[in-house]
Amino acid sequence: MADGERSREGFVREITDPDEDYSRWYQDTVTKADLADYGPVKGSMVLKPYGYAIWEAIQAGLDRRFRETGHRNAYFPLLIPESLLTKESEHVQGFAPEVAWVTQGGQEALSERLAIRPTSEAIIMTMYARWVESYRDLPLLINQWCNVLRWEKVTRPFLRGAEFLWQEGHTAHATGDEAQEETMRMLDVYEEFLCTDLAIPSVKGRKTESEKFPGAVATYSVEAMMGDNRALQTGTSHYFGTRFAEAFGIRYLNRDGELKLASTTSWGMSFRVIGALIMVHGDERGLVLPPRVAPTEVVIVPIASGETAQDVIAEARRLASELSGAHRVHLDDRAEFTPGWKYNEWEMRGVPLRIEIGPRDLKEKKAVLVRRDDRTKAAVSLDGIGPAVAAALSDIQANLLRKASASLAERTFRVKHRSEMNAVLTERRGFVRGGWCGEASCEREVKEATGGTIRNLPLDQHDVSICVACGKKATAEAVWGRAY
Amino acid sequence: MADGERSREGFVREITDPDEDYSRWYQDTVTKADLADYGPVKGSMVLKPYGYAIWEAIQAGLDRRFRETGHRNAYFPLLIPESLLTKESEHVQGFAPEVAWVTQGGQEALSERLAIRPTSEAIIMTMYARWVESYRDLPLLINQWCNVLRWEKVTRPFLRGAEFLWQEGHTAHATGDEAQEETMRMLDVYEEFLCTDLAIPSVKGRKTESEKFPGAVATYSVEAMMGDNRALQTGTSHYFGTRFAEAFGIRYLNRDGELKLASTTSWGMSFRVIGALIMVHGDERGLVLPPRVAPTEVVIVPIASGETAQDVIAEARRLASELSGAHRVHLDDRAEFTPGWKYNEWEMRGVPLRIEIGPRDLKEKKAVLVRRDDRTKAAVSLDGIGPAVAAALSDIQANLLRKASASLAERTFRVKHRSEMNAVLTERRGFVRGGWCGEASCEREVKEATGGTIRNLPLDQHDVSICVACGKKATAEAVWGRAY
Repeated sequence: MADGERSREGFVREITDPDEDYSRWYQDTVTKADLADYGPVKGSMVLKPYGYAIWEAIQAGLDRRFRETGHRNAYFPLLIPESLLTKESEHVQGFAPEVAWVTQGGQEALSERLAIRPTSEAIIMTMYARWVESYRDLPLLINQWCNVLRWEKVTRPFLRGAEFLWQEGHTAHATGDEAQEETMRMLDVYEEFLCTDLAIPSVKGRKTESEKFPGAVATYSVEAMMGDNRALQTGTSHYFGTRFAEAFGIRYLNRDGELKLASTTSWGMSFRVIGALIMVHGDERGLVLPPRVAPTEVVIVPIASGETAQDVIAEARRLASELSGAHRVHLDDRAEFTPGWKYNEWEMRGVPLRIEIGPRDLKEKKAVLVRRDDRTKAAVSLDGIGPAVAAALSDIQANLLRKASASLAERTFRVKHRSEMNAVLTERRGFVRGGWCGEASCEREVKEATGGTIRNLPLDQHDVSICVACGKKATAEAVWGRAY
Repeated sequence: MADGERSREGFVREITDPDEDYSRWYQDTVTKADLADYGPVKGSMVLKPYGYAIWEAIQAGLDRRFRETGHRNAYFPLLIPESLLTKESEHVQGFAPEVAWVTQGGQEALSERLAIRPTSEAIIMTMYARWVESYRDLPLLINQWCNVLRWEKVTRPFLRGAEFLWQEGHTAHATGDEAQEETMRMLDVYEEFLCTDLAIPSVKGRKTESEKFPGAVATYSVEAMMGDNRALQTGTSHYFGTRFAEAFGIRYLNRDGELKLASTTSWGMSFRVIGALIMVHGDERGLVLPPRVAPTEVVIVPIASGETAQDVIAEARRLASELSGAHRVHLDDRAEFTPGWKYNEWEMRGVPLRIEIGPRDLKEKKAVLVRRDDRTKAAVSLDGIGPAVAAALSDIQANLLRKASASLAERTFRVKHRSEMNAVLTERRGFVRGGWCGEASCEREVKEATGGTIRNLPLDQHDVSICVACGKKATAEAVWGRAY
């Protein structure tokens, strides 16, 4: 038993310093905060209960927003016949290299290979072609929560891996304008969700031709900055115009009885945002969770020993019960661990607020609130503790966003010269904003030279005259960064 | 437009009489109540928004119960290496014939085939073997919501198909007794859920050797009776003893420092229960949903024409807003359909309660409540309509269970002679209860002769002396039926 305890204590402590090796720090945090474990197939991942609870909170936040914007959930098949996947030529070219193929069912070889969905346009558009007959069937606004699979060589938990959990919205509209409006509406939903629930600021913008979704007319993304100043694409929204409608035959009779092609969109956010949560807010002690998506918002740790132990535990219980009406509260009254060990563990797991209560606190009718975000401590009266806890949680949520926003602003460099650009990108000091000529060749050249890519052309465009990369005339302002 | 309307009206009407062709009635109800559609791969199914909303209600009801019994959700990989699937020999023999195999990832052929999970024991037990070290890690109580795939030749929406949505609970315990207790606890959860939320009574019992889950020591099931008197297995709970722990190496150090094998269980319920909902409560007009899982509990249809139309619609809106605090309410104020057409449509979709309100009702400050279950109408004052609606819904829920329970009781025959047994089973008049000798050969003979199988050996055993099938000494009471 003593051995077991020692090894557990060691387990919590062994987390790599993020300044020393960010990538190892990330992996340590994932496994030691008990979010996920590695599966038996290379690159596969198991989402453990604590990680899954965060995903459920994310799902709830997004799902509510999707409903408020008129969408309904449905479920489409996992397996897509090859013949459907190839209907839209750009789409299949983009995805074919990373598709896992089912070739055998039971004892028989299949006559046609079936793709495990890497994304569901092909199957959903096939169904929409069947469902849409007249303008009265439009818009069709459907979302799906599911697993998808992309055969990736390099994998990293949450960020890049064969299988991931996500939502994919797919909509069909009577006009291109309506579809374009939907594309931007959902991009806004993602930005607002990231900001409000995850305390993650992001840069909204349009992807360049070379970075857009295979088959899309335009792809928009929200890009967030991680703790190592690299970019993470956290959500995308695609405008397809009539491309998929043409490939799959989604036609409707308009009010004048004319047969028209529908315009479609799709938009997706995956459990990759859990990776963003880790890297935007995490620190050398592990995870830091915004209260809104924390499975446990408040952990109560009684400091109980000697003759007052029972009184302290009784008060801690009362407190847990008092607070649990308004918050997700966990009482850690395990006798086999010391309070110090518990502090470490709950900090590692990113619980936003800790309440410590000991014999002296009990006598003074007080408790100590310890914030995970800035580790400040405050003694509060047990009488007014409800409002104090609510205020602390709300302040933590706001503070995390403030810090992340300041960090994004500080590490975004408006540059005029290529040398500055190179310095920022090669030294991974953040995002570069500046003019771009619009040429894919120039974009490629920057990537080869610095490892940086255009994350997007931000919607809030500043005036620019020349391309920072090549010095030619600029056509738009771009944001460059090194991306995950 | 007129054409579109006519064809829609026809669509709602064209439902096969269940007494004429039950199977076609079922398929008509599935598609015409807009629950699901057929996918492009043979046997695949698309769960449409209305069907998915019912599944979400079912998930919510089960998930709450799983949490209350101490379980947490997690997510394990979709793909299981063949070498893991074969670790438990009975398990692989049972599932191998219906596994879909991934043999190619991207452009390469895989060195080992990967199974799309037909169930997740193999992968979850592999992880448990890693996670369990000491008695303090037990019990491990995890549930997973996911898709699974079984390559079936014969398919039928919701009931039998390649891919289905389900939950699978997997638990590991220190002792066999605890695991056995968990097995029965979850069987009880299923029975109570079916009864309380879905208004479906069921027979709880133990499966015979020939019908148990591949690899289980014992399988228990809840069996419900459908509208055509056939049985549907709606949930199963398996006790594995130490079989899987031995095959996968799940060992723990007990309090005395000895290395012991864990005992495990699994239990699952799938969207097959939507099939049960259709077949237990449905009638010649389509679906009948119990209020607890109805996406829309109350539909309001204004009868609005002529000069009072606007007043009627305004009152219907007010009513919708008044009732929507307590119930899921939909106001159908579409101008292009007649009230009669709407009645048909919402009856087809099984909405439990309809409120009709027209000009005369408005004048008399009344509305008419029409129940879907017995189609009775009642005029109620607009003043006290909230309580009247709540009472009606609660009575509908209770009445559906009462009717289904009466039907199960009436169509369960305690028989003493083989001739009676044969008559019930071959004429599909219901369940047969009686003594069984315990021999698989006898069970097989009955199946060949009548198409009936032992659904389970019910937990509430009556005294029996001889086997109804073969006349030998009985070892237990069994329930026979023709099963889906």
